[in-house]
Amino acid sequence: MKNFIFENPTRIIFGKDTENQVGEEVSKYGKKILLHYGGGSIKKSGLYDKVIKSLKEHNIDFVELSGVVPNPRLSLVKEGIKICKEKKIDFILAVGGGSVIDSAKAIGIGAVYDKDVWDFYSGVARVEKTIPVGVVLTIPAAGSESSSSSVITNEDGWYKRSALAIIMRPKFAILNPELTYTLPFYQTACGIADMFSHVMERYFTNEQHVDFTDELCEATFRTIIKHGRKLVENPNDYNSRAEIMLASTIAHNGLLGVGRVEDWASHGIEHELSAIYDIAHGAGLAIVFPAWMKYVYKHDIDRFAKFSKNVFGVKGYDKEEIALKGIDALKEFYNYLGLKTSLKEVNITDEHFDEMAKKATINRKLGNFVPLDTSDVYNIYVLSK
Amino acid sequence: MKNFIFENPTRIIFGKDTENQVGEEVSKYGKKILLHYGGGSIKKSGLYDKVIKSLKEHNIDFVELSGVVPNPRLSLVKEGIKICKEKKIDFILAVGGGSVIDSAKAIGIGAVYDKDVWDFYSGVARVEKTIPVGVVLTIPAAGSESSSSSVITNEDGWYKRSALAIIMRPKFAILNPELTYTLPFYQTACGIADMFSHVMERYFTNEQHVDFTDELCEATFRTIIKHGRKLVENPNDYNSRAEIMLASTIAHNGLLGVGRVEDWASHGIEHELSAIYDIAHGAGLAIVFPAWMKYVYKHDIDRFAKFSKNVFGVKGYDKEEIALKGIDALKEFYNYLGLKTSLKEVNITDEHFDEMAKKATINRKLGNFVPLDTSDVYNIYVLSK
Repeated sequence: MKNFIFENPTRIIFGKDTENQVGEEVSKYGKKILLHYGGGSIKKSGLYDKVIKSLKEHNIDFVELSGVVPNPRLSLVKEGIKICKEKKIDFILAVGGGSVIDSAKAIGIGAVYDKDVWDFYSGVARVEKTIPVGVVLTIPAAGSESSSSSVITNEDGWYKRSALAIIMRPKFAILNPELTYTLPFYQTACGIADMFSHVMERYFTNEQHVDFTDELCEATFRTIIKHGRKLVENPNDYNSRAEIMLASTIAHNGLLGVGRVEDWASHGIEHELSAIYDIAHGAGLAIVFPAWMKYVYKHDIDRFAKFSKNVFGVKGYDKEEIALKGIDALKEFYNYLGLKTSLKEVNITDEHFDEMAKKATINRKLGNFVPLDTSDVYNIYVLSK
Repeated sequence: MKNFIFENPTRIIFGKDTENQVGEEVSKYGKKILLHYGGGSIKKSGLYDKVIKSLKEHNIDFVELSGVVPNPRLSLVKEGIKICKEKKIDFILAVGGGSVIDSAKAIGIGAVYDKDVWDFYSGVARVEKTIPVGVVLTIPAAGSESSSSSVITNEDGWYKRSALAIIMRPKFAILNPELTYTLPFYQTACGIADMFSHVMERYFTNEQHVDFTDELCEATFRTIIKHGRKLVENPNDYNSRAEIMLASTIAHNGLLGVGRVEDWASHGIEHELSAIYDIAHGAGLAIVFPAWMKYVYKHDIDRFAKFSKNVFGVKGYDKEEIALKGIDALKEFYNYLGLKTSLKEVNITDEHFDEMAKKATINRKLGNFVPLDTSDVYNIYVLSK
């Protein structure tokens, strides 16, 4: 087990009707806030009205900035930063899913920085402070509600990059599983592939002595599979919605990766896809991750066989066969959720494979389990076809 | 799953040589600190010198208060409070195990309170503020390094009671598994019974829809069993020490109990034992918990059978038989660690059963899985004989 530091102060407020506590939570940090959200879905569902009511009850002034899209854009982040500076905003409330939260985090770090916020994403500057951020979560997927990272897409070149710092963890995250009932099932499914991938990025490591976190990862995988399947049958099952929402947060709160080097190649490979094609991140991961697994499993067949056995209950004598069956089982699970597991099923051709592989590996090899160069990434796109 | 709030901001600094970071961590919070510890073991091991060196490097003034004993005493807490008030202490550093940390937490809340600190333990007052506390952990057992509670023994009547508040979680906890090599193995074993019990207190619940946290609990159980056994064979195995130390923190950081009502009857029953007999808390739990299990398992045979199957791999067709075999397996595990599982093996007779049962149930039923009255507790002591 490697040395590590783990610190996650996000206050998780979980359960029915918890969105009504938002005003009280916000009032601990701010008086004049930026209310940040996506399209009209929170208005249709009634969540917007509840949030406004709670904010008003606590005499909190707010400025609204809506319009966050999946794979959130740098241009809107810059608009938010301008508002924060002009209006002296002291807190940012993100109401939505991972894109809204990532956008809010970007605004938070940009609003207290004199230069270009993209510096934090391009690696030119390190995050040292932020306007505090809080969350009312509507989509369990990205885990951004308590994570230390933010992923933003720069339209100038369609680069999708991340910034990272403990202080970027939100102050609080309000998680009411009922708020996820109204999601189109496709979005629920994409979220499930996203959270599952967050655990896999941690699980596939070269560190040998990480039994406990391996066990915790496997516990999370099994929970996501069991309740993901149940949601296909009954999307309004509160208990399954709750298990999935909690698992999503734990999948990416940092705990499952302590003491090991994580991988993150598949996320890098997918980011290039969704930067160009605007495919949902989870949908892209459902295609890319199994291809990555097929490409690298020989590097540690034991670990892949352990994954197959402990997560999908694959039985058998031949380790390699067991390993491969686990990858098939994962694809079957994704298909059961209604997700595609090949690029051709989502009408993506090989046209940009070369360009994406090059962009994913500018100045770096991708991933840690098996560090991938440009041709490796190209080959994984080919395996994803 | 029940609604819950989970908030654990303790910064976990884990791994080899991390004790040398203590000065840097303390300097974020204080300039003049109380250095709180037990007997001479930290001096013998060299830890004391390392801590002092690191504090001096960061120009931190310190006042020492040693002498914490297992089942830490109110009298020493009051001495610490007096020092803090007189010397204007702004931070308390606990170097030791759960007793030292619990004592430090009690001093922290007492030092900013005008009346008797016991008020927080007797339920007369609620904790609202504290001097911040930090930890260098030497014994993985109590989980107090990131927990929100403190247990103190009042010598006036030998009452052992707890106080609870999120702000009592330490600011940081330094966990170096190597520091645990020098523990007598008996203390390691007691620690293992303690951490295992912390998970059981959460696992045995009446809440039906808690699959994910059940999975996380079972993952923690299995890790503790696997690496507890390995430590019997090789107490200086770094990796097993690391797994046990991390499991101990997670066992009691609050995560495993979210969304459910926890039990805590066995802790209450054991507290009366160790208040009178000064038996180590973990040693007492190894005796009391299996007796509690035998007394209550019929309340939810399914859950006990699940425990047996998923934790100890018990197989069979008859649920009750499976349930009972799991309790036996737990006793075997404790015996393998060198712990006793009956009162007579530790020379405790039935002399005080009646008195202890009454004290454990003053103004309350004990526990939530099956609420126990005085005669139930008496019967469990009898089953522990």
